[in-house]
Amino acid sequence: MMSNASVEKWGVFEAAFNGPSAGNPYLDVAFDAVFSQNSREVRVPGFYDGDGVYRVRFMPDNEGEWSFRTRSKASELNGKTGSFVATKPSAGNHGPVHVHNKFHFAYADGKPFLSFGTTCYAWTHQPLDMQAQTLDTLKKSRFNKIRMGVFPKDYPYNVNEPLYPCFEKGADGKEDFDRPNPVLFRHFEKQVAALCDLGIEADIIMFHPYDRWGYADMSAEQDFRYVAYLAARLSAYRNVWWALANEYDFLLDTKPLQQWDRYFHILEENDPYGHLKSIHNGEPTMNFDHRKPWVTHTCIQNWDVKRTQEWREAYGKPVVNDEPEYEGNIIQSWGNLTAQELVHRFWITATRGGYAGHGETYSHPEDLIWWAKGGELRGEAWKRIGFLRDLLEQDVVNGLEPMASFGEWPWTRVSGARDGDVCYIYLGEHQPVIWSTGLPKDGADYEVDIIDTWEMTVTPAKKVEAPIPHPTRHGAVVRGGKADAAFGVELPGRPYQALRIRKNH
Amino acid sequence: MMSNASVEKWGVFEAAFNGPSAGNPYLDVAFDAVFSQNSREVRVPGFYDGDGVYRVRFMPDNEGEWSFRTRSKASELNGKTGSFVATKPSAGNHGPVHVHNKFHFAYADGKPFLSFGTTCYAWTHQPLDMQAQTLDTLKKSRFNKIRMGVFPKDYPYNVNEPLYPCFEKGADGKEDFDRPNPVLFRHFEKQVAALCDLGIEADIIMFHPYDRWGYADMSAEQDFRYVAYLAARLSAYRNVWWALANEYDFLLDTKPLQQWDRYFHILEENDPYGHLKSIHNGEPTMNFDHRKPWVTHTCIQNWDVKRTQEWREAYGKPVVNDEPEYEGNIIQSWGNLTAQELVHRFWITATRGGYAGHGETYSHPEDLIWWAKGGELRGEAWKRIGFLRDLLEQDVVNGLEPMASFGEWPWTRVSGARDGDVCYIYLGEHQPVIWSTGLPKDGADYEVDIIDTWEMTVTPAKKVEAPIPHPTRHGAVVRGGKADAAFGVELPGRPYQALRIRKNH
Repeated sequence: MMSNASVEKWGVFEAAFNGPSAGNPYLDVAFDAVFSQNSREVRVPGFYDGDGVYRVRFMPDNEGEWSFRTRSKASELNGKTGSFVATKPSAGNHGPVHVHNKFHFAYADGKPFLSFGTTCYAWTHQPLDMQAQTLDTLKKSRFNKIRMGVFPKDYPYNVNEPLYPCFEKGADGKEDFDRPNPVLFRHFEKQVAALCDLGIEADIIMFHPYDRWGYADMSAEQDFRYVAYLAARLSAYRNVWWALANEYDFLLDTKPLQQWDRYFHILEENDPYGHLKSIHNGEPTMNFDHRKPWVTHTCIQNWDVKRTQEWREAYGKPVVNDEPEYEGNIIQSWGNLTAQELVHRFWITATRGGYAGHGETYSHPEDLIWWAKGGELRGEAWKRIGFLRDLLEQDVVNGLEPMASFGEWPWTRVSGARDGDVCYIYLGEHQPVIWSTGLPKDGADYEVDIIDTWEMTVTPAKKVEAPIPHPTRHGAVVRGGKADAAFGVELPGRPYQALRIRKNH
Repeated sequence: MMSNASVEKWGVFEAAFNGPSAGNPYLDVAFDAVFSQNSREVRVPGFYDGDGVYRVRFMPDNEGEWSFRTRSKASELNGKTGSFVATKPSAGNHGPVHVHNKFHFAYADGKPFLSFGTTCYAWTHQPLDMQAQTLDTLKKSRFNKIRMGVFPKDYPYNVNEPLYPCFEKGADGKEDFDRPNPVLFRHFEKQVAALCDLGIEADIIMFHPYDRWGYADMSAEQDFRYVAYLAARLSAYRNVWWALANEYDFLLDTKPLQQWDRYFHILEENDPYGHLKSIHNGEPTMNFDHRKPWVTHTCIQNWDVKRTQEWREAYGKPVVNDEPEYEGNIIQSWGNLTAQELVHRFWITATRGGYAGHGETYSHPEDLIWWAKGGELRGEAWKRIGFLRDLLEQDVVNGLEPMASFGEWPWTRVSGARDGDVCYIYLGEHQPVIWSTGLPKDGADYEVDIIDTWEMTVTPAKKVEAPIPHPTRHGAVVRGGKADAAFGVELPGRPYQALRIRKNH
C-alpha cells in the first residue's frame, strides 16, 4: 500500500495488489476502486496484469489529497485503501483533450488543441529500433496526434510478424482471446506514455478488418471484454483518444451496427475521464451516425475536403478528416497523392473549420512505410503541415470558424475561416491578382500577410483600393456596386496562396 | 414563291411572304406552314421579320421532294404553297445533335458528338471587328460548342452598350418588349450560321439575370412570345441548342419554377426538330430537376467534378458541366482558376462520363475577356482541351462510360472510363509509380500509352507484371491476393497523367 505518495495532476497514479491467479482471472475476477476527494467519488476499474498482479490506475483531475478503496468479490482485492497527493502539473502537461467550442478541441487546462495528426497504424509492432526511430521522427515533426492500432496489421506492405501476440497462447499454441497478453499491453502503454512525453495524443484504434490472427473475428463477448480491458489499462493516460475502428464499415458483416454502439457504451462505463471517442469509415458513403451522443467528434475518411462545412453541419461536432488520402506513390489510390495536394487538402480543411490528418505511403524496397510502420518520413507534406500548425498556433484560440455555412458564396469555391480578430483565407487552385472578399469592412488597422503554403513564406501584402464590381442581380439580391471590404490586396497570381488578416490593437 | 428550289438536307429552307404590317404584327398575326413529304406532315411556325415581311424556315431531315402550305387568318398569308428538293448534305453537315446512348450525343447522321464547349456570353453584341476576331479564334481552337446569350449582358467587365437593342424602340425611346428588333435577330442568326459553318454548336441562352435593359423583367406573356419567336426564327439552324438560362435560380423571384417549365413546353410546341434543351443553375445546390422529360440533358455549374457520376445517376441524361469554374485571374472565384486546374477538371469530367465546358477570364485593361466578349484566347487551357478532344475523337464512338457507378472503389478517387475496346484512366493528383487497376484482365494484345495531359505527350507505357497486393478484408469481400489485371504499367510518378488502353485487332 502507498502512503505519502504523490503524482502530478493528470499524471498516472497506480496501485498494484496480489490476487487470485488460478483459473482465468481475466474472466473470473472483477475488481475496481473508488477514488475520493472530499465528498467526490470516482469509480475506476482495475485490471489483471498477469502473474497474480492486479492494478488500478487513476488520473487525478484535481490537485490535493485523494484516497481510494478497492472493491472485489476476491477478498485479497477487496477493501484495500490508500491515499496520495496530486501535485501541480509539470510543464507541458495540459491534461486530456476534450471538445471545446462545439467544433474544436482544448486541453483540460484550457490551452487550445489544434489537431495535426499523422498515422502509423502498426508502429508499436515493429522492431524496437524502428520504434525508437519513429519517436525520434515524431520529435522533429510537428504532429500532435497519431493514429495507431492496438492490433497489428495484415495488409499490403504489412506482412511482417508483430513483436508480441496480443493474447496469451494456450497449450495448443493458439492465442486465447480470453487472455490478453500483458507483455504486449505493457509495451503498448509504454509507447503511449512515450508519445505523451512528446506532447502527442494517441488516437488508439481498437478494431480494424486487416487481420490474419483472428482478432477481427473475436466473439461479441470477447470484443466487449477487450474494450473494457483497454479502458481499464489505458484511460489513466491523459493523451488517450479512443478510435473505435479503422474502417468500421468493412467489419459490419461480423460486427453489426448495434455492437459498435455497445463498444462506445463500455467505454462510457469504464473510462472515468470521458476521453474523446470516434469511429472511422472506409467508404465515403458509410459515415457513422456521428450525432449519437457517445461519439465525441466526427472522424471521417473523405478526400472531398471542400465538404468540411457540410460534415460540421450534419453532425454538429468537431470534424477530424483523418484520411483525406495520403502522400505517396504506391498503387493504391488512397496512398499516392502528391505532397502538394495533401498540403492543399490540409489548408482547405483548416480554413473550413475542420482538422485534417496526415499519412505517408512512398513505396520502399523493404516496405518501410511511415503510414503503417513509422520509421522515417520521406515526403514533403509534413514540413508544410508543421508550418501550418506553427502559423495557426500564433493566433487561434477558440478555433477557426468558417466564413459561412455550407453553400454560401463564395466560401464554397474558396476557403476562409476566422477566430476573433484573425482571419485566414485560402485560395488554393484560385489565382486572383487582386482580392477583397472577406477582408475587413471597418476602418481599423489590419495587418495582412500573403502566405505561400508550399514555399512556407509569409510576406506583407500590398493594400490597394478595394475593387468596386459592377452590380449584378441574383434574384432579389443585388451584389456588387460597392466594394465588399475596406481595402483590397494585391496577390501574386499564383495558386496555393493564403491570406492572413490580423487586427492591430 | 419558290419552285425548283433546292436545299441540302439539314440546311435552312426559307420562304418569305408579304403580309399585314399595321398594328403590331408580332401580336396580331398568327402564321405557320405545314411541310409535307409523302404522307408525312410537319407543322412549322413562321415569324414576322418587320417591314411587312413574314418568313417560315424549315430544316428538312430527309432528302427528296418537300412541299408546304401556309396557314393564317390573314388572307395574304394563308394557303400559300411551294415545294423544294432536299439534296444530299454537303461535307461537314452531319445534322443536328441529339442525345445518343443515354448519356452521350451524336449528330443526326450518327457521327459521335463529343462536346467540348466554350463560353462567350455576349460576343454577338460586341463591335463587328471583335466578332470577326472571335470567329477567327474559334476556327483555330478546337471547341465545338459555344454558350452565348441572345440578350446582352450587364455585369462586371461587361458595361459597354450592345450593337443593337433586342426590341424596337417606341415613340418614347423605350424598347417595346412586344416588338422584337429584326435587325438584332438577323445579326444573331447570321452569327449562328457562321458558327454552323465552323462546325460549332450554338448553345443559345434565352434568359439571364444580368440585365439593365429590362429584358430580365419582361412579363410572363412577353417571355412566352419571345421564346416562341426564337423557336420560329432559329430552329431551322441545325447547330442550335436551347439553353433556357444562365443561372435560372437567380431569376426565380420574378420567373417562378412553373414558368420555366412553360418555356420548355413552348419550345416543344414550336421547334419541330426537338433541338437539345437544357437549363443552367447558379448555386451548386440549385440544380434544376433535369429528370423532367422536356429537359434533354443535364446542364450544370459545379466545380466538384468528381461528382459527375452522381449527376448522371440522379438525372439519367448526358451531363454537360458548363461551368466547372473558368481559367483566369479576376477577383471573382468562379473566374480565377489556374489553367492546370481547368484542364484537370476537363479530364476528370470526361473520364467519369460527362462533358465539361471552358471559359477564360483573365483581367484585361479594356475588359476584353473571352468568356463574355470573345476576341482572343489568352490562356493555356484551351490548347490542352483541344488535345483532349483530338485524342478522344480517335477512338470514342458510343461515348465514354465510367468504369463504375458513383461510389465504387477506386473510381471515386481516380477517374476511368471506357468505350468498347478503348479505356482511359486519369490519375490526376495521384502519382503511383506502378498501376494495374482497370487494365485488361484477358490475354489479348493491348497497346497502352501514357498521356501527359499538360505536356500533351503520348508515350508508349512499359508493361510490367501486375502487382499482387497482399489480400485485405472488406467485410465479406476479400480484395487483393491476386493481380487485378493481366499486366501492370510503369508510370513516371508525376501527377496529371492518364493511361489510354487500346486493344489491337
